[in-house]
Amino acid sequence: MILEHADIRIDPQKRDAFEEAILRGVTTVIAPSKGFLGYKVRRSIESPGRYILTIRWATVEDHMVGFRASDRFAQWRAIVGPYFVQPPVVEHLELISPTA
Amino acid sequence: MILEHADIRIDPQKRDAFEEAILRGVTTVIAPSKGFLGYKVRRSIESPGRYILTIRWATVEDHMVGFRASDRFAQWRAIVGPYFVQPPVVEHLELISPTA
Repeated sequence: MILEHADIRIDPQKRDAFEEAILRGVTTVIAPSKGFLGYKVRRSIESPGRYILTIRWATVEDHMVGFRASDRFAQWRAIVGPYFVQPPVVEHLELISPTA
Repeated sequence: MILEHADIRIDPQKRDAFEEAILRGVTTVIAPSKGFLGYKVRRSIESPGRYILTIRWATVEDHMVGFRASDRFAQWRAIVGPYFVQPPVVEHLELISPTA
């Protein structure tokens, strides 16, 4: 299992609409993808307009090939892309601390 | 519950020593603090030397006052600070997606 970690910046004035859109986009477009294991959306307390989206995938390939090379990626970006004020910074993380 | 989110950059050549230090620092110095609820350390797959430390705290004050204003903060920085190649970017996040 790996974690997709996306650092997202939006116009904070569009907060309510963005929050509805990202939850809808993940649950309707990303969640049905092979290897999708769960997600969280978190809002920064100190930086209005900053969000961290984390998605658990079985493998990096499930995200980068299975999802990103599919039609679903364009659907996802159509839902959330209009809110981005800069390209999200997306990386994959592996856990090094104990899982307990 | 809120999440402390620290984006950390180190010299990737010191990876093994840093990973030992951060796990030791969290478990011995931070974990005994009031309001500490758990933590994870994750390593970036794409960016050697980038780590995301997340700590669950009962409140922001437990982190920023209870921990940071205590002697423990200096102890923590003595353990991990020498590895940082730039100041960590630390913010607090609140969950907006369903917990289920």
